[in-house]
Amino acid sequence: MSEFSLIYRHFKNATKPNASTVLGIGDDCAASQILPNHHLVSCMDTLVAGRHFPINTSAYAIGYKSVAVNLSDLASMGATPFGILLGLSLPEHLANDEFLSEFTRGISDICGQFHVELIGGDTTKSDILTICVTALGTIKNGQAIRRSGAKIGDIICVSGEIGSASFALENILQHGRGVLNAPNSAIYHTLDCPKPHVDLGQKLVGFASSMIDISDGLGQDLGHILSASQVGAMIDLSAIPTNPLLLQLPYAQKWQHQLNGGDDYQLCLTINHSDLKKFNQLYPDLIYPIGKIVRDEGLQLFFDKKPIEFKINGWNHFNTR
Amino acid sequence: MSEFSLIYRHFKNATKPNASTVLGIGDDCAASQILPNHHLVSCMDTLVAGRHFPINTSAYAIGYKSVAVNLSDLASMGATPFGILLGLSLPEHLANDEFLSEFTRGISDICGQFHVELIGGDTTKSDILTICVTALGTIKNGQAIRRSGAKIGDIICVSGEIGSASFALENILQHGRGVLNAPNSAIYHTLDCPKPHVDLGQKLVGFASSMIDISDGLGQDLGHILSASQVGAMIDLSAIPTNPLLLQLPYAQKWQHQLNGGDDYQLCLTINHSDLKKFNQLYPDLIYPIGKIVRDEGLQLFFDKKPIEFKINGWNHFNTR
Repeated sequence: MSEFSLIYRHFKNATKPNASTVLGIGDDCAASQILPNHHLVSCMDTLVAGRHFPINTSAYAIGYKSVAVNLSDLASMGATPFGILLGLSLPEHLANDEFLSEFTRGISDICGQFHVELIGGDTTKSDILTICVTALGTIKNGQAIRRSGAKIGDIICVSGEIGSASFALENILQHGRGVLNAPNSAIYHTLDCPKPHVDLGQKLVGFASSMIDISDGLGQDLGHILSASQVGAMIDLSAIPTNPLLLQLPYAQKWQHQLNGGDDYQLCLTINHSDLKKFNQLYPDLIYPIGKIVRDEGLQLFFDKKPIEFKINGWNHFNTR
Repeated sequence: MSEFSLIYRHFKNATKPNASTVLGIGDDCAASQILPNHHLVSCMDTLVAGRHFPINTSAYAIGYKSVAVNLSDLASMGATPFGILLGLSLPEHLANDEFLSEFTRGISDICGQFHVELIGGDTTKSDILTICVTALGTIKNGQAIRRSGAKIGDIICVSGEIGSASFALENILQHGRGVLNAPNSAIYHTLDCPKPHVDLGQKLVGFASSMIDISDGLGQDLGHILSASQVGAMIDLSAIPTNPLLLQLPYAQKWQHQLNGGDDYQLCLTINHSDLKKFNQLYPDLIYPIGKIVRDEGLQLFFDKKPIEFKINGWNHFNTR
């Protein structure tokens, strides 16, 4: 295996050129044009086999997800992606055309949807499949939606069903794939090939006061907004959009998936009353209210208007750091 | 171990702010300002423990080198770095203050030298220590020094001693550290904490016709220039700057380190006669001629004006792809 030939053969033409690219794969660095009055927006997420995806995940999904989770980070700022860098650490037994062509097909598909170009990166051997992606995008100066902008009284919304990916992961780990038949098996897709809400993120610029994507669980990720904004939240658990498969679970199990399960890559955002009304008139049925921002720090959960006690993973960090 | 607390405690203030940073560590993405009439320049390099550095490398050097090799890629374009993203995959036994504080000190030192800010990234668990860094920089539109600009008749130059890092690596792997006493042990430093030639790279803008940094060996990396520029080269082996420790070796061993050994991170560049003369008047003793670009494809080696046969690693790729 040669890094050089691998990169060239599989990755050189994996994605279509983006207009911003001045120099793509094949030199020491890529060069890109950033529009005047725009900021560069950059992020990096690493996926380790067996930790960030089950080891029986398809090569296609591994490629797809590695990029999707990064585009989701750009989405949560309201940014427009243009390029990615791919750092692929590959075990010897996967350094073959079968794995690489499917892995590349996954990358091509997700990049193609968002006009994103693979502009650089490197390939190296490792005993553990590890994929590190940097995603690059732009946003007009001053328009990035940060975690720190939530205000008391804002409505907390999410972009879709919460807990599905966590449910799918538990199901796969306990029973293997194939226990759920169609249409229920579609829930695997939410885990394997998450949808980055890039378009929605851009629509929310000028509306949302704060935003994050849900990678570690609604509880923890909303907690980042609360911590950065120095506010608290009340959540109505019955208002959280939920896949029908999760509705069959006991409450505690369902809430565990929704509050502590990750990998949904839905957006969680705050927005004030009048902006929510305007946004819903422009773009109906894209975001779903689940609670509101309050003065008292911490996260208060309610179900049928009764307070609920539930342990949120990682919650201590917000209080102790 | 929590990703969140690790990032904050060790990395939040690891580096000084760069003027381009609009939003640094702590949100889903970083945001950066790119000057008008400048291009963004980006690259990514991954280091895997035991493959890209000996496992007995100090935590300080691991942090330092992870950034240095990426800044070296920016240097080879003539770019000015401003930020890095760090993807750290960390085994459980290294997730402690002792490792992380030294690792971070290495990153702080190299970033401090070049006014580079750590603006984002992520930390995850893995059984193998893997460090993936993306470096971001800028260059005035159209001034990036590419691999593809070498012209017949150009002089091939390097920025300093070649083969030292490869010699140091062989010595460490065969004898462990500590066999070489000072001042000879200084050669370990060329392997552990390579110097990215960022300032020199910038000086060469407008002078060099092509440039690359030597990570995989002079033979292979010069080969990338030849391939991209569709030219050949003649190299005078006796003209290659050489550490005194390597001068004691038999020729074949010395050439093996210099032509096929990597990790030196010296710049290799091409420049025409008159530009070389001008450059040397402005900046004496920074670059050293070792050969010239010729029409016939391939790499011709000479010693004492006699042709030498020597197998260059990876050379086939240039002819077959």
